[in-house]
Amino acid sequence: MEQSGADGLKVRYIADIYTDFEEKFGIPRQSGLVEGLTGRIVFRPEYRVPEALRGLEGFSHLWVLFDFSQAHRDDWQPTVRPPRLGGNRRVGVFASRSPFRPNPIGLSCVKLERIERGTPDGDVLVVSGVDMLSGTPVLDIKPYLPYADCRPDAAGGYAEEVFGAKREVNIDPELLREIPADKRGALVECLAQDPRPSYQADNARVYGLKFAGLEVKFRADDKYITVISVGPGAEAAQDEAAHE
Amino acid sequence: MEQSGADGLKVRYIADIYTDFEEKFGIPRQSGLVEGLTGRIVFRPEYRVPEALRGLEGFSHLWVLFDFSQAHRDDWQPTVRPPRLGGNRRVGVFASRSPFRPNPIGLSCVKLERIERGTPDGDVLVVSGVDMLSGTPVLDIKPYLPYADCRPDAAGGYAEEVFGAKREVNIDPELLREIPADKRGALVECLAQDPRPSYQADNARVYGLKFAGLEVKFRADDKYITVISVGPGAEAAQDEAAHE
Repeated sequence: MEQSGADGLKVRYIADIYTDFEEKFGIPRQSGLVEGLTGRIVFRPEYRVPEALRGLEGFSHLWVLFDFSQAHRDDWQPTVRPPRLGGNRRVGVFASRSPFRPNPIGLSCVKLERIERGTPDGDVLVVSGVDMLSGTPVLDIKPYLPYADCRPDAAGGYAEEVFGAKREVNIDPELLREIPADKRGALVECLAQDPRPSYQADNARVYGLKFAGLEVKFRADDKYITVISVGPGAEAAQDEAAHE
Repeated sequence: MEQSGADGLKVRYIADIYTDFEEKFGIPRQSGLVEGLTGRIVFRPEYRVPEALRGLEGFSHLWVLFDFSQAHRDDWQPTVRPPRLGGNRRVGVFASRSPFRPNPIGLSCVKLERIERGTPDGDVLVVSGVDMLSGTPVLDIKPYLPYADCRPDAAGGYAEEVFGAKREVNIDPELLREIPADKRGALVECLAQDPRPSYQADNARVYGLKFAGLEVKFRADDKYITVISVGPGAEAAQDEAAHE
């Protein structure tokens, strides 16, 4: 199955996760922040074995280990500038959840909404609270074990310093109708988190967020996010926001 | 740095963790269960860069992603029998934390006790609550982010059913003196968890636990663990306990 040597290990993609994000801009900076964001985990044919999921329905949350496939680099940098710290303070890569790390493996805790059995793609895991690009390759699924994984006494370092206040989202009811009803709540939540990288928060600028096949244009300031238009997601937004 | 293709990713070992366990038998089944168990994470030369740890000291807990290097198999099995369920009930591999999985990547939450700066091995992370074999290769270190990683409302599936009662540990003071003072607490805690696989819990049998260079022989029943001898850890114990 895997090949290993003295210096590393070959890992295989076991599944792919499909979400409403075709681009990085607008993705919540961690899993669980926007509960309404759902994803579908589709196993690759070799791993499409119903027995491999036996007992999983008893767990409410899962760990997804995935490949930050859009963050591969030929070299690694010891420090990163988390967008959350304004993009101008450097922290060590191992003190961050940045996708740009020696091994580009992401770790997200998602909620298991349901298992869709016997679809044309086999048994599909429907999860929520996702923070992955659509099409992200998955390396592993593990149950979240509260007695081992939940540490209420943990101190969150610099990441605790700057939990930005949520923005209020203004959206014209007419524009809201352009968004499928089951996607509205999650979209508004994503916007409320202010997806702009802090270091280029420009109140005059129009930002474009691609979400669920739509492009949502908005302006933002310290208090409000104002949606300007909702249309089919044709052109690419120019901005990227990375995990912290 | 890494090579990737349509079906997988090559990951590199960035560090190794050294613990008091030379064998699997006796290792707690998850991280954090025995707080006194410490480990030293030593970075490999290429990753021995002090800046890569900047800001890490502000976090109390870390995720360690590691290679279950003693659990490599040529093929994978869709189900496993967690020792915790008595070894006679099968659950899906993705509903378990078993080391025997398509990609043998382990995930442990450890407490960061301190960073030892400028040792001959570079900056070393001293962590506690470990559940790894000594010499386990490490793939990634990430900060534990309470706001994303701690889910107090999570349901723990079958793993909640059988949280065995702890055993009382009987050990003669004379034997206790054979154990270095700073290892006694952790050893007693490991024994109290009853390291025997449930499916072969044999009250008459003498088990040998190798720990911190010693071999600790004991008998066990439903209530007590009784230490029989403590000596230098020469011969290997025959039993193995796996992660669940």
